[in-house]
Amino acid sequence: MPETIRSLQNGQIKSAVKLRDRRGRMQQGRTIVDGLREIRRALQAGFPIETIFVLPEALSGPEPEQFEQVLAEHTDLAIVHVTREVMEKLAFGQRVEGAVAVAKIPATRLTDITLPECPLAVVIEQVEKPGNVGAILRTMDAVGADFLISADGRTDLFNPNAIRASLGTIFSTTVVDATSEEAIAFLKSNQFQIYAARVDGSVPYTTVDMKQSTALVLGSEAHGLSDKWHQAGIVNIHLPMQGIADSLNVSTTAAVLLYESLRQRT
Amino acid sequence: MPETIRSLQNGQIKSAVKLRDRRGRMQQGRTIVDGLREIRRALQAGFPIETIFVLPEALSGPEPEQFEQVLAEHTDLAIVHVTREVMEKLAFGQRVEGAVAVAKIPATRLTDITLPECPLAVVIEQVEKPGNVGAILRTMDAVGADFLISADGRTDLFNPNAIRASLGTIFSTTVVDATSEEAIAFLKSNQFQIYAARVDGSVPYTTVDMKQSTALVLGSEAHGLSDKWHQAGIVNIHLPMQGIADSLNVSTTAAVLLYESLRQRT
Repeated sequence: MPETIRSLQNGQIKSAVKLRDRRGRMQQGRTIVDGLREIRRALQAGFPIETIFVLPEALSGPEPEQFEQVLAEHTDLAIVHVTREVMEKLAFGQRVEGAVAVAKIPATRLTDITLPECPLAVVIEQVEKPGNVGAILRTMDAVGADFLISADGRTDLFNPNAIRASLGTIFSTTVVDATSEEAIAFLKSNQFQIYAARVDGSVPYTTVDMKQSTALVLGSEAHGLSDKWHQAGIVNIHLPMQGIADSLNVSTTAAVLLYESLRQRT
Repeated sequence: MPETIRSLQNGQIKSAVKLRDRRGRMQQGRTIVDGLREIRRALQAGFPIETIFVLPEALSGPEPEQFEQVLAEHTDLAIVHVTREVMEKLAFGQRVEGAVAVAKIPATRLTDITLPECPLAVVIEQVEKPGNVGAILRTMDAVGADFLISADGRTDLFNPNAIRASLGTIFSTTVVDATSEEAIAFLKSNQFQIYAARVDGSVPYTTVDMKQSTALVLGSEAHGLSDKWHQAGIVNIHLPMQGIADSLNVSTTAAVLLYESLRQRT
């Protein structure tokens, strides 16, 4: 029988709540995972979950069965029961689904990436909204893309809202933080075709070859890509825009480009 | 010199604030528009704006110049100055940009739609999130799609959050509420190819012809399309999904399908 934490002052609880802030995540090298589906996917992907806080009475619906099955397969996990009051503090305004988990953030670097034949990568530069990061990861999962580089990132990749928006697909995708310079050097040294999406890009996205090693590069919501990506060996592509607005959401652009590469590759 | 409203109890202000709720919008047949860019696009599209509440000291940056130009061209508008306190009440927690507008909601019906040659339409059934409606409209604007039908809608099309997420493109697009049955009858009687996006759709989306009159049909975030769309003459299409997740966001699916039709049509 797991122990039950009843006190909001408990050290484990206080540490976990600090993971809602970027500062806490950086200091502890950990993040907090909301949602049964997300926790299950983290476990299935072998992501380093350390502790799962559970409010047993709140586990209900179809997902908990799958969830408890997966828990049973991971006997090395620290499972801690909590009271409703403690769970509400941990959930921090999110919908209470009966469990939140604390996980170590892997310190993956560019040199850790294993490159398959003709990899498909996405680079996002200075993207600010965790929701966009998560949405892009969800589409990357759908098309089988290989890895994401967050270049000069303005949000941490394992922000709980990015995890949530990714529906947990972040755990089965390789994601790496780097500077834009490091990303460019890495992609060039590995013979990637680099396609930088710009509103004023000269080449329509449907006319470039995405069958070779391909990196799709997207800029920030507010400012697009920086000038660092204006250089020889990088092709500026664009999506046709026929209306009154002059840009698409970054996750929409990513989806159109990713499905174009899947179309070319199948 | 326009009058300045200083009282939170002013009847015009109280009526406008009620437009934040769906009930208020339904009762008054009006909606509230946030954002200088959005108000400008509404005016440029000839959308029936009735009143613009302005906090002159809060107008700043590059957009206000364009905004004031457009205002100057619309001399029939009721422009009312307000104090900061009144503007904050009107803005309702949104970022204060110096202006919010009240507009009549047009009562467009299916029979009002003017069909160009080979129209491209989107139907969303029971979609709940205004942000998704707005994101879909933004992509429709980008590819030059002709109209949107909200079938058995669970959010009103002119929800302020849908307007905002559309960046104001909603004002230059034809949008219509209808039942699913009415939508199907309308599309069939006008010889549309109807493509229903389903996770288990039998035909890959890249293999169907979108050059003729085309309707792309998408279901709700939680449940997908209802059985009403399972019938002769409607083709069930799908996007390939190669990962661990079993669905894409509805606005992502819409974007991939809309750009596929643009690819086929150009």
